[in-house]
Amino acid sequence: MPKIFTVAGGDMRFSSLAAQLADEFTVYAAGFDPGIIKSHRVTLINDITKDLPEADCLVLPLPVSNDGSSLNTPLYEGTIPLELLLKAVKKNGTVFGGKISEDIRSIFEAAGFKVFDYLEREEMAVLNALATAEGALQIALEKQPCTISGQNILILGMGRIAKSLIRILSGFGCSVTIAARKYSDLAWAEVYGCKELHISELLYSDALSKSDIIFNTVPSMILNKALLKKCNVSCLMIDLASKPGGIDINAAEGLGLRAVRALSLPGKTAPVSSGRIIGNTIKNILNETE
Amino acid sequence: MPKIFTVAGGDMRFSSLAAQLADEFTVYAAGFDPGIIKSHRVTLINDITKDLPEADCLVLPLPVSNDGSSLNTPLYEGTIPLELLLKAVKKNGTVFGGKISEDIRSIFEAAGFKVFDYLEREEMAVLNALATAEGALQIALEKQPCTISGQNILILGMGRIAKSLIRILSGFGCSVTIAARKYSDLAWAEVYGCKELHISELLYSDALSKSDIIFNTVPSMILNKALLKKCNVSCLMIDLASKPGGIDINAAEGLGLRAVRALSLPGKTAPVSSGRIIGNTIKNILNETE
Amino acid sequence: MPKIFTVAGGDMRFSSLAAQLADEFTVYAAGFDPGIIKSHRVTLINDITKDLPEADCLVLPLPVSNDGSSLNTPLYEGTIPLELLLKAVKKNGTVFGGKISEDIRSIFEAAGFKVFDYLEREEMAVLNALATAEGALQIALEKQPCTISGQNILILGMGRIAKSLIRILSGFGCSVTIAARKYSDLAWAEVYGCKELHISELLYSDALSKSDIIFNTVPSMILNKALLKKCNVSCLMIDLASKPGGIDINAAEGLGLRAVRALSLPGKTAPVSSGRIIGNTIKNILNETE
Amino acid sequence: MPKIFTVAGGDMRFSSLAAQLADEFTVYAAGFDPGIIKSHRVTLINDITKDLPEADCLVLPLPVSNDGSSLNTPLYEGTIPLELLLKAVKKNGTVFGGKISEDIRSIFEAAGFKVFDYLEREEMAVLNALATAEGALQIALEKQPCTISGQNILILGMGRIAKSLIRILSGFGCSVTIAARKYSDLAWAEVYGCKELHISELLYSDALSKSDIIFNTVPSMILNKALLKKCNVSCLMIDLASKPGGIDINAAEGLGLRAVRALSLPGKTAPVSSGRIIGNTIKNILNETE
Repeated sequence: MPKIFTVAGGDMRFSSLAAQLADEFTVYAAGFDPGIIKSHRVTLINDITKDLPEADCLVLPLPVSNDGSSLNTPLYEGTIPLELLLKAVKKNGTVFGGKISEDIRSIFEAAGFKVFDYLEREEMAVLNALATAEGALQIALEKQPCTISGQNILILGMGRIAKSLIRILSGFGCSVTIAARKYSDLAWAEVYGCKELHISELLYSDALSKSDIIFNTVPSMILNKALLKKCNVSCLMIDLASKPGGIDINAAEGLGLRAVRALSLPGKTAPVSSGRIIGNTIKNILNETE
Repeated sequence: MPKIFTVAGGDMRFSSLAAQLADEFTVYAAGFDPGIIKSHRVTLINDITKDLPEADCLVLPLPVSNDGSSLNTPLYEGTIPLELLLKAVKKNGTVFGGKISEDIRSIFEAAGFKVFDYLEREEMAVLNALATAEGALQIALEKQPCTISGQNILILGMGRIAKSLIRILSGFGCSVTIAARKYSDLAWAEVYGCKELHISELLYSDALSKSDIIFNTVPSMILNKALLKKCNVSCLMIDLASKPGGIDINAAEGLGLRAVRALSLPGKTAPVSSGRIIGNTIKNILNETE
Repeated sequence: MPKIFTVAGGDMRFSSLAAQLADEFTVYAAGFDPGIIKSHRVTLINDITKDLPEADCLVLPLPVSNDGSSLNTPLYEGTIPLELLLKAVKKNGTVFGGKISEDIRSIFEAAGFKVFDYLEREEMAVLNALATAEGALQIALEKQPCTISGQNILILGMGRIAKSLIRILSGFGCSVTIAARKYSDLAWAEVYGCKELHISELLYSDALSKSDIIFNTVPSMILNKALLKKCNVSCLMIDLASKPGGIDINAAEGLGLRAVRALSLPGKTAPVSSGRIIGNTIKNILNETE
Repeated sequence: MPKIFTVAGGDMRFSSLAAQLADEFTVYAAGFDPGIIKSHRVTLINDITKDLPEADCLVLPLPVSNDGSSLNTPLYEGTIPLELLLKAVKKNGTVFGGKISEDIRSIFEAAGFKVFDYLEREEMAVLNALATAEGALQIALEKQPCTISGQNILILGMGRIAKSLIRILSGFGCSVTIAARKYSDLAWAEVYGCKELHISELLYSDALSKSDIIFNTVPSMILNKALLKKCNVSCLMIDLASKPGGIDINAAEGLGLRAVRALSLPGKTAPVSSGRIIGNTIKNILNETE
């Protein structure tokens, strides 16, 4: 098992992750302004050009970089070139990152490091989906002037986020309808006590007009203008799918409908949990590769 | 069945109630600034001294009055003396209000009207508790930097709000503990899959120190300084009980604990539902007295 | 706290109760054939006329007696006159029993004992209701040739058993309708995500004809012949109310409907839990009276 | 869309399927004794050698054959050679069956028919898992002398049956632990509010000794003698995995443990639902191939 971790860059998820790793390991942090890291067990590196220790594991943020050359450091005034980080890892050490591009992967692999993308792990995706679903519920509670209990909810898609949403909503007395394409997804909807609708029938059913809230989880255009026209004017639409999303937000606004695009929810609404999820995923990877 | 309603004063719950009653009845509204009432089926009375029609039913707000003499009109620039409203009801008509004082009740009864306090109705209390529980969950989602799923929740009391909270939380994978005084309440906790704790054992158990969120629903001091000292510093406390509440907020702040007093949640977080609840309660009263 | 208990008579609930009490106390048992009491920590009294010790607490069965004079001992070949049991309790000792008649209460009170009826305790009623609801679900699973998931369930009444049934059924994807008389009960139905129906509207709604399973919990005649005629021929009816019950079983059979009277379910389907419930109730009583 | 179906052989699921298909299609049935088919809309073929019509679709049972040459007809006194059924389908017609062997598939394909195995469909597997989970709960309710509520449940595996079991158990106040091998399965356990345990840690944790009920869903040996020795003597074990199953039943009995092998539950406990599931799967296949 490794002993020394360096967490370099990222948002509140990663400052939280550093603090959590410090319960078990020696942890250095870089790419954060002073005051961001609250745990006194984490050593903040002030001058990365000089003080950088060689860690067993380097944890890079999600995404690792926004421009392909410098580290993604939203909580840091300075700039850290990715190449500088090659000195941050011991020989044969391990590098973790999220959404690692092929170019960045090459840089670290060429230096002899093992490279893992925690975002590709299924357990990370599952627990992220749960945090996303909670964030989506929070938006719904905030935006709706009425209780969620008793409302008609339509969920587009039946992947991880949809399943987490169904689970969370099960304590509210909602009527939940799942619109999906695969018959097996509709079978799961039945198992989870939802009404089911083949997505091709959206136009012909009354599901849209009856819905009080619509959550989209499908990352391709579903609610186009023709379908939006069937929605109730008081309906709240929340698009949880990554870009380009599945709701034509412009068309919705043109029709006077309330449509919200909610991206990267876990990082915003539950950074501590998100940090824990990334940390646990990293530990799972280490367990499996030992 | 009555045909004409006048809704006089109140907050967004009552403007919404007016709009909802207008689906079935002729509805006048008074005590609202122009623009507040959105439904074009509701007739807004501009000059209450002149244009006031005689309604079968007069609906007064919650509370009816803050000073004992003038109507509670938070959405109106002017002032309406309660006595003016005696002209707003037909002979033998009915007056509804919330938290009606004996004095105000006398004024209307002396004029020959039937007077009902919708706040005294059990169905109103039950549905208000559900809306309160949703509001409390919204606060928890907003204030916690982690997911609710997986947290240890302690609920003080086992009345209507507690039962609604348990129900809503059942879809989150929380571990919920109920602390209550009556053995029958602890039995209900068992039915609803919660851990149970006699409230007298709070000091000696680890329930407080293990809790991530504590909801108080008991309207008498429970979490005093001695008990607060046992709470985890990262714990979030939400006091849902009416004043004086059950958490010593000052002591909590002194100890660096996060404690929130959340009053009148349904009116704030779910005014449309609250309006519907009041409307349905009024219709139930009318059904029973016919 | 008392130290010595004698459990006298009763069914498997009471043999189980004796074994459970023996974890904490010295326990004697009487009114059971050899072999019924499995715990070696319980001392079975063979000759009650000679070997009867004086206990701090005497636990009598539910009901205490079927004929008013001898102990209710379904698991015992012999007969035990109630009066013989006066010698089984210490001076100032305590007697517990279920459904104690005034006459029997007098016998023991006249001898100077405190007498408590555990059946009158609310926590006992609540947990019994949960066990009853589980037994009712078991019957439904056994009698229905289809899954419970996806069925339309109608529950008559909204008391303890109904609330437990709703809770248990919440994991199945059923559509549950509550028919009740009180508006506050219908409000609770809404909180628990059920459809609601005033019981006076049963005749005019399609709730009966659409139901796959009907559970009655109301102890007065609800489903008379006129209403039974509206039920679907494949519907399963389970009457959980104490006699005379709320379903006209004869009329149902005449109409070719499947109607089951299910009485005393906890004692039959969950004797161990029932014993535990009685034991905990007795301990609560002792806690309160100390 | 096809118009004429022949349902040939099978158990009560298939007699029920025939009746259900008759709501929409012309349906013949063969391979059933008189009196088995209750629906008067289904035409029973008495002499299959003479009266066999040419159907658009032939529905064969699950499994199609037990000996490779004759139809599986548990509800029929006679024997039907599979080859006879080649005359039961129109030119270019379609044949459906469950667990079709390569040999049997060849026979029908050689005759020019399209052949589909409904058991290979994911939606069929999902809904079968739900029916299996209900059957497993029924066994647990029948075998346990206590309520399911409040018990510690251990589920081995996190596939379709486990997910359905979790869902059904969510209304009971159980503490459910999932033991699985994949980290993503453990993540799902967290989403569904369960405790999680890597299956490799079974031997070292107290999960086995604390469990009141263990459901196995893994089709390979998990609970061998060494692990069984850690189980509580009052524990009930239900093996839901297809042969050879995952519990060493002989070893369990040798240790005095209650272990039940529960195979083909949906066909036994919910034949009507099973028939509907097969029917819907067949209709899905027809929809997709049109």
